[in-house]
Amino acid sequence: MRSYSRRWPVVFSRATGSHLHTEDGGRYLDFFAGAGALNYGHNNPTLKKVLLDYVGNDGVTHALDMFTTARRDLLEALAEVVLRPRGMDHKVVFPGPGGANAVEAALKLARTVTGRSGVVHFTNSFHGATLGTLSVTGNSQHRRAAGLPLTGATPMPFDGYDGRHAPDYLARLLADPGSGLDRPAAVIVETVQGEGGVNVASPEWLRAVADLCKRHEILLIVDDVQMGCGRTGPFFSFEDAGIVPDLVCLSKSISGYGLPLALTLVRPELDVWRPGAHSGTFRGVNTAFVTATEALRTYWTDDALEKSTRAKGERVGDALQGIVDANAGADLSARGRGLVQGLVVGAGLADEVSAEAFARGLLVETSGPHDEVVKLLPPLTVSDAELAEGLEILAESTRVVLERAG
Amino acid sequence: MRSYSRRWPVVFSRATGSHLHTEDGGRYLDFFAGAGALNYGHNNPTLKKVLLDYVGNDGVTHALDMFTTARRDLLEALAEVVLRPRGMDHKVVFPGPGGANAVEAALKLARTVTGRSGVVHFTNSFHGATLGTLSVTGNSQHRRAAGLPLTGATPMPFDGYDGRHAPDYLARLLADPGSGLDRPAAVIVETVQGEGGVNVASPEWLRAVADLCKRHEILLIVDDVQMGCGRTGPFFSFEDAGIVPDLVCLSKSISGYGLPLALTLVRPELDVWRPGAHSGTFRGVNTAFVTATEALRTYWTDDALEKSTRAKGERVGDALQGIVDANAGADLSARGRGLVQGLVVGAGLADEVSAEAFARGLLVETSGPHDEVVKLLPPLTVSDAELAEGLEILAESTRVVLERAG
Amino acid sequence: MRSYSRRWPVVFSRATGSHLHTEDGGRYLDFFAGAGALNYGHNNPTLKKVLLDYVGNDGVTHALDMFTTARRDLLEALAEVVLRPRGMDHKVVFPGPGGANAVEAALKLARTVTGRSGVVHFTNSFHGATLGTLSVTGNSQHRRAAGLPLTGATPMPFDGYDGRHAPDYLARLLADPGSGLDRPAAVIVETVQGEGGVNVASPEWLRAVADLCKRHEILLIVDDVQMGCGRTGPFFSFEDAGIVPDLVCLSKSISGYGLPLALTLVRPELDVWRPGAHSGTFRGVNTAFVTATEALRTYWTDDALEKSTRAKGERVGDALQGIVDANAGADLSARGRGLVQGLVVGAGLADEVSAEAFARGLLVETSGPHDEVVKLLPPLTVSDAELAEGLEILAESTRVVLERAG
Amino acid sequence: MRSYSRRWPVVFSRATGSHLHTEDGGRYLDFFAGAGALNYGHNNPTLKKVLLDYVGNDGVTHALDMFTTARRDLLEALAEVVLRPRGMDHKVVFPGPGGANAVEAALKLARTVTGRSGVVHFTNSFHGATLGTLSVTGNSQHRRAAGLPLTGATPMPFDGYDGRHAPDYLARLLADPGSGLDRPAAVIVETVQGEGGVNVASPEWLRAVADLCKRHEILLIVDDVQMGCGRTGPFFSFEDAGIVPDLVCLSKSISGYGLPLALTLVRPELDVWRPGAHSGTFRGVNTAFVTATEALRTYWTDDALEKSTRAKGERVGDALQGIVDANAGADLSARGRGLVQGLVVGAGLADEVSAEAFARGLLVETSGPHDEVVKLLPPLTVSDAELAEGLEILAESTRVVLERAG
Repeated sequence: MRSYSRRWPVVFSRATGSHLHTEDGGRYLDFFAGAGALNYGHNNPTLKKVLLDYVGNDGVTHALDMFTTARRDLLEALAEVVLRPRGMDHKVVFPGPGGANAVEAALKLARTVTGRSGVVHFTNSFHGATLGTLSVTGNSQHRRAAGLPLTGATPMPFDGYDGRHAPDYLARLLADPGSGLDRPAAVIVETVQGEGGVNVASPEWLRAVADLCKRHEILLIVDDVQMGCGRTGPFFSFEDAGIVPDLVCLSKSISGYGLPLALTLVRPELDVWRPGAHSGTFRGVNTAFVTATEALRTYWTDDALEKSTRAKGERVGDALQGIVDANAGADLSARGRGLVQGLVVGAGLADEVSAEAFARGLLVETSGPHDEVVKLLPPLTVSDAELAEGLEILAESTRVVLERAG
Repeated sequence: MRSYSRRWPVVFSRATGSHLHTEDGGRYLDFFAGAGALNYGHNNPTLKKVLLDYVGNDGVTHALDMFTTARRDLLEALAEVVLRPRGMDHKVVFPGPGGANAVEAALKLARTVTGRSGVVHFTNSFHGATLGTLSVTGNSQHRRAAGLPLTGATPMPFDGYDGRHAPDYLARLLADPGSGLDRPAAVIVETVQGEGGVNVASPEWLRAVADLCKRHEILLIVDDVQMGCGRTGPFFSFEDAGIVPDLVCLSKSISGYGLPLALTLVRPELDVWRPGAHSGTFRGVNTAFVTATEALRTYWTDDALEKSTRAKGERVGDALQGIVDANAGADLSARGRGLVQGLVVGAGLADEVSAEAFARGLLVETSGPHDEVVKLLPPLTVSDAELAEGLEILAESTRVVLERAG
Repeated sequence: MRSYSRRWPVVFSRATGSHLHTEDGGRYLDFFAGAGALNYGHNNPTLKKVLLDYVGNDGVTHALDMFTTARRDLLEALAEVVLRPRGMDHKVVFPGPGGANAVEAALKLARTVTGRSGVVHFTNSFHGATLGTLSVTGNSQHRRAAGLPLTGATPMPFDGYDGRHAPDYLARLLADPGSGLDRPAAVIVETVQGEGGVNVASPEWLRAVADLCKRHEILLIVDDVQMGCGRTGPFFSFEDAGIVPDLVCLSKSISGYGLPLALTLVRPELDVWRPGAHSGTFRGVNTAFVTATEALRTYWTDDALEKSTRAKGERVGDALQGIVDANAGADLSARGRGLVQGLVVGAGLADEVSAEAFARGLLVETSGPHDEVVKLLPPLTVSDAELAEGLEILAESTRVVLERAG
Repeated sequence: MRSYSRRWPVVFSRATGSHLHTEDGGRYLDFFAGAGALNYGHNNPTLKKVLLDYVGNDGVTHALDMFTTARRDLLEALAEVVLRPRGMDHKVVFPGPGGANAVEAALKLARTVTGRSGVVHFTNSFHGATLGTLSVTGNSQHRRAAGLPLTGATPMPFDGYDGRHAPDYLARLLADPGSGLDRPAAVIVETVQGEGGVNVASPEWLRAVADLCKRHEILLIVDDVQMGCGRTGPFFSFEDAGIVPDLVCLSKSISGYGLPLALTLVRPELDVWRPGAHSGTFRGVNTAFVTATEALRTYWTDDALEKSTRAKGERVGDALQGIVDANAGADLSARGRGLVQGLVVGAGLADEVSAEAFARGLLVETSGPHDEVVKLLPPLTVSDAELAEGLEILAESTRVVLERAG
């Protein structure tokens, strides 16, 4: 979102596991993980092997929506490993190579199916930089870059925003024929707002939003681009809340290896497009299909990764709380779920913490409307030792920055 | 655009050069080339080698906009091989992984820079399936799939549309303060409309459009996603017209190997975005960077490929004219530039020709508002023998279909 | 709003003071007063005299924006009687004949001056039925009639909506660069929402909204079309709150006699239109000018009418509270300011009360999103006896309806 | 449109027939007639009498949509005098007091009925200054004043624009599923563009537009606000073309006396609004109803006025052609229909001609995108002597201006 090249003025050349290496021999512990696109670490050896084999054997590389063995394998793996075990019968749409494509497709489908045009999104949401996804994005800097008024969407308070922990304002508006909020086609939500500042929606709030949607026949879209693929523990970030969205957007870590891939999961009755209604060149990146299939079969056929992520998440949460406690005079706080965790340091200061961490060999990003949160997104495959090292650097960096700030 | 999987109901597994292979041993000559994303053929051995080396050596795979050696190499190759020799000082924006991202970025920049919101596009244009790109796309089936009224764009007649070969209607509207056409931020144009039916703009028309833009301080965007990277002969499809667009959109064959990559080339004075104004996860697909760099250095440091494409294009054009002449009773025609060529057969019939060709081992697509055109997009690296074979199949398929149609 | 002809299925032919007469000799006490357009009663004799004189002497009837003696007289009266005594230096724009024109002009000016496109309005607002005014109107039935998605406006909770009595949600959104609410050009508000259900904004809330606007350089528009011209007591309904809006919309009773006239009052620095930027045929209804001038000079050169309206308002309020108290078992409530007062009876029931009142010779309208409020808008010139009579009919009608409803 | 008060810097006080009188005794021959709102002259004595009687007898002045005797009389007169004789079974909607209301209502109904959002209008159209009507207006100065991008409408070439006399471009776009023009809800057209420069559509062109609409199930709206009520000869300006629009907008001269009144005539099957879907305070200006009824019964029960208007129109046309011929060296031309006639003098010059005419006691307006046309709109009741006097002043004014311009 920010310009990472400005934040980290070095030239990277190689990458393995939890580390990025610079061309002049530097080595950085990566708690950014491609903004959540590298949940299984850089150049994960298992995935790398299938990729090299596939390319080496002249597997189809690019195939739009043609049938290929790689596509078939991925669809089977998604059904077997992800959907069926969770009781989901969603269809898989290949909307294009990036997360924005997954969201654009979800919005288009929701509008077409319902015949309504509006969409409700939430304060501090982030869903993409294309015109359709910008309209449901909160960030004003991004919105301004559209160069024209964004329409078709209305922001509503996210869980805890404005001090309230129920979607009661939205509920009131929807029940009131004079509210001025036209019944929307869809509500789009992130269960944890990564770019928005690691804002965590409670399961209760998510359930209330889902209920509201059902009651008013509004489609529920969960944008799980950053929080899916195990980032919060379970494969889908909404599993803990016990809800099943009508549409789910996946991208980032779905290919496993950092190759562009995006999916939109769609309840069968919503799959109304005739062939050719939504197109795009890069809907058949078969190299990404093979790494995606391998990632699903390697990491999601049992609950080992999920348990490990939850456990590591608790460790990180404890460590962040430790930093908060150790700096009692400062106005710090910690929040997060699984391996997306935020240390709220304050505008300006978070950038400094990130810079100090970089100087100590750790890559961490900031987020939030004022860039006031240090956001931790380590690979899920991070080792305990790496985790400890990174957290220590973070603690030290925070201490230094707060001391300097007086 | 269409559902290729329906057109070609086989399962592809491998691909080399001009051929796709099915899992059960079938072999198809490919005159579709990934909708123009595989100008250098499937799994081009030169590019494959650098890709395998890069992945094998744990090169950075995914890096958003961080500095990497692969990014630097690509930027250098673009400057040396593409921009400087053509007297262009455009900056390179990495807008996201697909062509739609390149167009979305161009539209956003144009609107931001000019402070105007409208965009002029042309009849039968195709620029993508996201909300912003749909609004400048002509195809009604695609437009309907948006699910809401598309705004911010006005279609104008493409060269030859409605019998006229000058942008005089547009010129009249722009000069008339009562015309109802608000001065647009940009005009976006394809030099050859691939999806729209292989409609070829003449150099004169393109120059007139460019002049009009200059006169009215409107930015000119050339969407060279399908026609760039040598498809029409020269690297950029607009070179023959002697124009230099303010913004150029590239994707499809720019990575060379079919990996997702897109670029927006921007006149330096238009690069007004502050860091973070436009974002996206897959702006740093470094595997695509290395194949892109290699493709530029392999194919574009001399004019061999350009000359070969022009020569092959003439052969294809002659062959198509031969088919037209051989079926004088039918209402056929041929058109195209370089290695994008179309045989106008008629609605319904073009689909049948494509099916007959498939039965004979040739993949060819249809295009045009009524799917009335058989569109030929062979790899630029197609051999003379392959070209001959494919054209013969096409001639035979056409003959059979016309005979059947009586 | 509703179809009055269905509510009152008789044919009116004459009207005087607080009464409407039917062609067959019926006589109705009018507590509707032309939806607030007849604050001085039907065919007010003072105004009637100047109108007859003006027409009889061939005064200019229709003059667009030409200079006329009638226009000059009105502008002088507005300055002397209304603006100067209140310390306002607003310019007077003649935007067209109806309230919607006054609001359309205010919205256009606000957007032009600020260069922003969005407008904040409030839940259960009503500002008109043209495209621009519909977009800031809450009522879903009206909004649907637009036939296309309404854009450019966002509803915010009115005072007391959702249980809160401060514009804190709006304040939070405006202060948060990630909220998704683009800084609007203007906030448009009614101090009492007539159509919305006689919802009364407190002076504190209005001041807080005005402060918020000032702090964020957002223009404040008060739509005083129904509540201005003394309906709540003072000439402008916002005077009690001690605020001075940037733009004020007036219509309905401004002509005094029920002739179409609308005004937009504009802070001088906002009057940026060049001649001809906003036009319309009926901006110079000189017959309305003469009655408007006479109404101002007759009723607003001292505070007699204001005091009388406040006193009568209290009487009505007390009477409504009496009805509430007399029907303690039912869920009634009363609210209002000056001579706009509402008895909240409930959906369905309010319509029945109105029908019972009609049967007893009283015209009263309903309002609110569910038509749950009986709305009283008697002429300000209503006599004490008429007031007593009407309130008695209302009490009786309510009693009958509640009894029937069980 | 323009600021008439700047053009004519005098103060008018009285008006009779074809003359306006200033407060200091000046007297002007009026060939502007309230921009076409005073077809029967200023303070027409027949209409004045019924107005004075009605007001004098306390007739209902203002009644929203309540039943009144005045409303009934008008509806009967419309049916008897206007609709039935022309074989029209349109319903009469009272959309609000001005022409913009009539157009807004037509656009809303067309969108609601068809479920489509777009509207086609024509180059140099003028339909109003509210948001909905601005979007179908050509004038860029007006459009800019909206302060936000206007959407939902596409301009098409009016008859003769760009040298072509058939709506063939529009026909081509509608027939082409790839054109980028979504099938619109409606086409809105003026038969003669008054504000746009007295551009006259031929009957053939109008019929072709009507046929096109029928073929594509698009609703045809004729905005007859300025050209209706006999301005071109027949009551409706479209009668000579033999077409029957789906919706007709009337205002300006419909009340006859210059009082605000507007009507939207709607084919019965299009009257889909439920009560209350479209509202507004000034839909029941009963004083305008009585003058409207009287005007219909006085002027439209035989064909005397129509014949007289056609004859006078020919005289004016001949006189203008005489001016053209007398100034052969200058680039003049004349055009018009009935008593709307234009002398094309050129930008800048037309304003000077108008000023010279004013100095000689004649009020004439200019129009056209560059204000290049002197537009003549005398009352239809103008006498032969007045017509001769005005045309002589115009000839002299033109001569003087051209001489000065050299």
